[in-house]
Amino acid sequence: MQPTPSLRNVHAARKRIAGRIHQTPLLSSDTLNQLAGVEVLFKCENLQKSGSFKYRGALNSVLALPAAVRKLGVATHSSGNHGAALAAVAQRLNLPATIVVPHTASKFKQENIRRYGGRIVHCGKTLKSRENKLAEVLADTGASYIPPYDHFDVIAGQGTCALEILEQTTRIDEIWLPVGGGGLAAGTVLATSKPAASNKNVQVVGVEPTLAGEAQVALQTHQRQLPMSPVSIADGLRASLGLMNFKILDNYQLPIHLVSEQEIVDAQRLAMSCLKVVLEPSSAVPLAALLKHGSWGSDSRRVVVILTGGNVELPL
Amino acid sequence: MQPTPSLRNVHAARKRIAGRIHQTPLLSSDTLNQLAGVEVLFKCENLQKSGSFKYRGALNSVLALPAAVRKLGVATHSSGNHGAALAAVAQRLNLPATIVVPHTASKFKQENIRRYGGRIVHCGKTLKSRENKLAEVLADTGASYIPPYDHFDVIAGQGTCALEILEQTTRIDEIWLPVGGGGLAAGTVLATSKPAASNKNVQVVGVEPTLAGEAQVALQTHQRQLPMSPVSIADGLRASLGLMNFKILDNYQLPIHLVSEQEIVDAQRLAMSCLKVVLEPSSAVPLAALLKHGSWGSDSRRVVVILTGGNVELPL
Repeated sequence: MQPTPSLRNVHAARKRIAGRIHQTPLLSSDTLNQLAGVEVLFKCENLQKSGSFKYRGALNSVLALPAAVRKLGVATHSSGNHGAALAAVAQRLNLPATIVVPHTASKFKQENIRRYGGRIVHCGKTLKSRENKLAEVLADTGASYIPPYDHFDVIAGQGTCALEILEQTTRIDEIWLPVGGGGLAAGTVLATSKPAASNKNVQVVGVEPTLAGEAQVALQTHQRQLPMSPVSIADGLRASLGLMNFKILDNYQLPIHLVSEQEIVDAQRLAMSCLKVVLEPSSAVPLAALLKHGSWGSDSRRVVVILTGGNVELPL
Repeated sequence: MQPTPSLRNVHAARKRIAGRIHQTPLLSSDTLNQLAGVEVLFKCENLQKSGSFKYRGALNSVLALPAAVRKLGVATHSSGNHGAALAAVAQRLNLPATIVVPHTASKFKQENIRRYGGRIVHCGKTLKSRENKLAEVLADTGASYIPPYDHFDVIAGQGTCALEILEQTTRIDEIWLPVGGGGLAAGTVLATSKPAASNKNVQVVGVEPTLAGEAQVALQTHQRQLPMSPVSIADGLRASLGLMNFKILDNYQLPIHLVSEQEIVDAQRLAMSCLKVVLEPSSAVPLAALLKHGSWGSDSRRVVVILTGGNVELPL
């Protein structure tokens, strides 16, 4: 039985990665405040290194490896932001990174991994094919496997985002974020589990696309669910909750909103127009729900929305 | 003979607009550092209120009006960022704003003005038609004319951006910016005219599209030039230097690079991909030149590029 991380581990992660990540800004927009009916601060992890918050967890996990192990390199299977983040971390630390990617993954995503010097190894579309290919890579290279979310150091690393938020601002009532595998959600729950002097309790609120809404079912039934058919435009959120992530979020009783595909696209367009930052669809999911439902608590005054990533191909 | 503003006026502007603007972040990208061969910090005025640095000059100018005059409202002719900025400032201060716009201006730009509650009055395409219509508006309403760049308080307001840069970072060698009417360039020259304790002299470097390169000619010949045919994709830079702006920049001997339309588009795409912020073409002009020529001084280590605006229609 693996232990789950705690607030103490999030603080340790913060120290470990300090100076090696961007302190991303909190942006706001009068227009969006009016539309949401509450003051909203946007934590721009789309401006993080490698274009998503995933850099935090990847960096923390790689730095936590013993030096002799680390130098053999790292590997994962992910065609998305975790793959790019791990490649970017490895490049920065002068380590080899191998990313197992289905041969059907988009050219844009593969280029994003290559841009950071990641070695791509193709596999088939099934989970079995991915896992077999990854096992081969690990056996061949001695590289360490860094999973995308169901991992002690990844969760602790993702939690550093919320610690930063709590330092950058005061008196916040809620933090809204998208839920996929649950790495960011679990880390944020841990990071906010003990109110800082300047903050009362902060409510974490999760949002999923209806088409990838298994976390809501899992947390309502207290049973992990299989992932749904991978059709949502919010491709970063198609995974189902990891085991460790589920435990933390189930214990917290994370509330979860659902939003439609059209609501996601509308929120993405609106946020890019008002905030002038590039968002991938997954990033717009919490805003879509906030615009629809308003703040979670009726007396909440100030809400932080985490913009999780900006890795999207823009037809410019 | 109108006096030109000085560093003292920029400091006064800073105080006047304090708390009413966003302190925009400085972003960086390892990829862009490598491509430029120098450390580059991007001052994100595209994330400023109304989507451009123009908010600074407009706000400073409106706040500098005597209260009895101010309450009659403000007006300008501009279909671009100055028009949107003035409308946004007026909305914030509960004043009426009238923006004279050629009836041929793009729907996107007109919507950007209306979004901030600006009243649009259409005019013909010629400068004469614009000026006549503006004169009518001023006579009818008693509103104050706030020009886009050739104005004491506008220049002082735009200079506050550089003051902010000097506070946000230390040891910078150069500030690169695009040159149109010269409001931002003149303000920046004033703001950096006396080195702060933490900074040595900072060299200001201007960049224009070759297709709108009249400022380079003006500063080389010490003669103001007529604007060139308005064809560059960098539509914010088609104006020629204002009188006051010319004086300040001619006295400073501002160096100016030129870039092609293709170089602008390439830099825009690259910057959006690496920085994950939305840039209009004018914003990408300095980066295009920096990638082509490298830093101005051969021993420069750290360059700030001002990203001036993000008001562009994205085909999402």
